[in-house]
Amino acid sequence: MEKGISGAVIRRLSRYYRYLGELTEKKVERISSGELSRIMHVTASQIRQDLNNFGGFGQQGYGYNVKYLYSEIGKILGLDFQHPMILLGAGNLGTALANSPDFEKGGFRLVGIFDINPELEGICIRGLPIRMISELKDFLSSQKVEIAILTLPKEQAAQTADLLIDNGIKAIWNFAHIDLDTPEDVIVENVHLSESLMTLSYNLTEYRKTHDKKS
Amino acid sequence: MEKGISGAVIRRLSRYYRYLGELTEKKVERISSGELSRIMHVTASQIRQDLNNFGGFGQQGYGYNVKYLYSEIGKILGLDFQHPMILLGAGNLGTALANSPDFEKGGFRLVGIFDINPELEGICIRGLPIRMISELKDFLSSQKVEIAILTLPKEQAAQTADLLIDNGIKAIWNFAHIDLDTPEDVIVENVHLSESLMTLSYNLTEYRKTHDKKS
Repeated sequence: MEKGISGAVIRRLSRYYRYLGELTEKKVERISSGELSRIMHVTASQIRQDLNNFGGFGQQGYGYNVKYLYSEIGKILGLDFQHPMILLGAGNLGTALANSPDFEKGGFRLVGIFDINPELEGICIRGLPIRMISELKDFLSSQKVEIAILTLPKEQAAQTADLLIDNGIKAIWNFAHIDLDTPEDVIVENVHLSESLMTLSYNLTEYRKTHDKKS
Repeated sequence: MEKGISGAVIRRLSRYYRYLGELTEKKVERISSGELSRIMHVTASQIRQDLNNFGGFGQQGYGYNVKYLYSEIGKILGLDFQHPMILLGAGNLGTALANSPDFEKGGFRLVGIFDINPELEGICIRGLPIRMISELKDFLSSQKVEIAILTLPKEQAAQTADLLIDNGIKAIWNFAHIDLDTPEDVIVENVHLSESLMTLSYNLTEYRKTHDKKS
C-alpha cells in the first residue's frame, strides 16, 4: 500500500506534521477535516487522499484526533526513531543547521561536526567540538551514524561523499551545489538553494510579463 | 506557449543552467543531446521536452550551442536582469545566504540587511551594515528592491512579511518555518528545511523496511 508514494505526498505529510505539532502544543484534541483544511490551505479531499495512502486516520462525523494523527504521521516519516547525524562543514550554513532546535524535536540528533579548516578544530557548536575530516573514518567505525549533512563547498563535497559512503553512511542531506554520484542504496536529499531562488526569479518575471501586458 | 509551466520544469531548467554554466567555464562550445543527458542524469527526451516548452533550442545533428542555450535559459529564468534583494535576519543562515557568491552571478544583488537584535546594528556583512527593522520602511521607499529573503524566527516572520508587502515587496524567499499568508500578487518561494529532512527520513525508513524484509 505504501509503494509508489510520491515526493509531493511526503512533503505534504511533513507539512501536516508541522501543523499538527502546533495544534498539539495548543492542546487541541480533535479537529474537523474542514478546519484542518482551512488552516493548512489544502482541500479536505487532498488531505483525505494523502492519508488514504497509509490507511486513512479520520472518522466520519468525528474528524481527526490530533495527537493520534500527529503520532501516526510521525511514524510514517520515521520520526519515532532517533536518527544520529553528523555535519560536514562548520561554516555559517552548517552552524545554522546545527543550531536548529526543530530537527532535534524530530529525533535528528547531531553527534559529530567535521570541517577541513584546521583553524576551526576544537571549537564547540552546541557542545560538540569541530573535528577534522581526517578523523571521520575512525569516528564512523566507533559510532552509529545514519545521516550526514553535507555543507562543504562543491570542490570538497564529491570526495567527502565518497568517503562517507565507503564508511557506511546511508543517507546524505546535500547542500553542496553539486549532484552527487552515489550508489543506488544511498539516499540523497538535495537542497539546491540556487534552484529555489531561480524558481522565484522565474515566477517574478512571468508575473511582470502578465502584469505589464494588462496595465 | 509559456503558460502552465510546472514548478518541476522550472527546477530542471535551473539545474540545466547550472550545468551549462560549468560547461561555459570549461570553454565547451557545443554538446550533443546525448552527452548533455549523460552529465545531467536526465534522458535526452526529457531535456528536449523541457526546452520545447519554450520553443526548443537544439539543432538536428548539431546538438546544442552551450553559450546560446545557457543565455536563453538564463532569460527564461529572468537572470538577464538585476534583482536587488534585501535580507531579513542576520543570523547564521542569513549570513550564509549573504555570502553565497553563486547568487550574485545570477544577478541577485544584496542591497540591504536587517535584523531585530540591536546588538547586531552596524556590523557589516559583505560591506553592508546590519540595519534595524524599524528602518525598513524608509529604506524601501528610497530604494528599488524586488526580493526579500526572510530568515527570521517564525514568531517575527509573519508580521515582517506584512510590513514588506505593505511597502511594495513583490517576492519573498521564505526560510521561516511558517506558511505566509500573502496576497495573490506576491510571489513566495518557500524553503522549508524540516520538510526536506523528513523526506530523507521517510526514504531512509522505507529503504530499511524493504532491505530488512529481504535480508
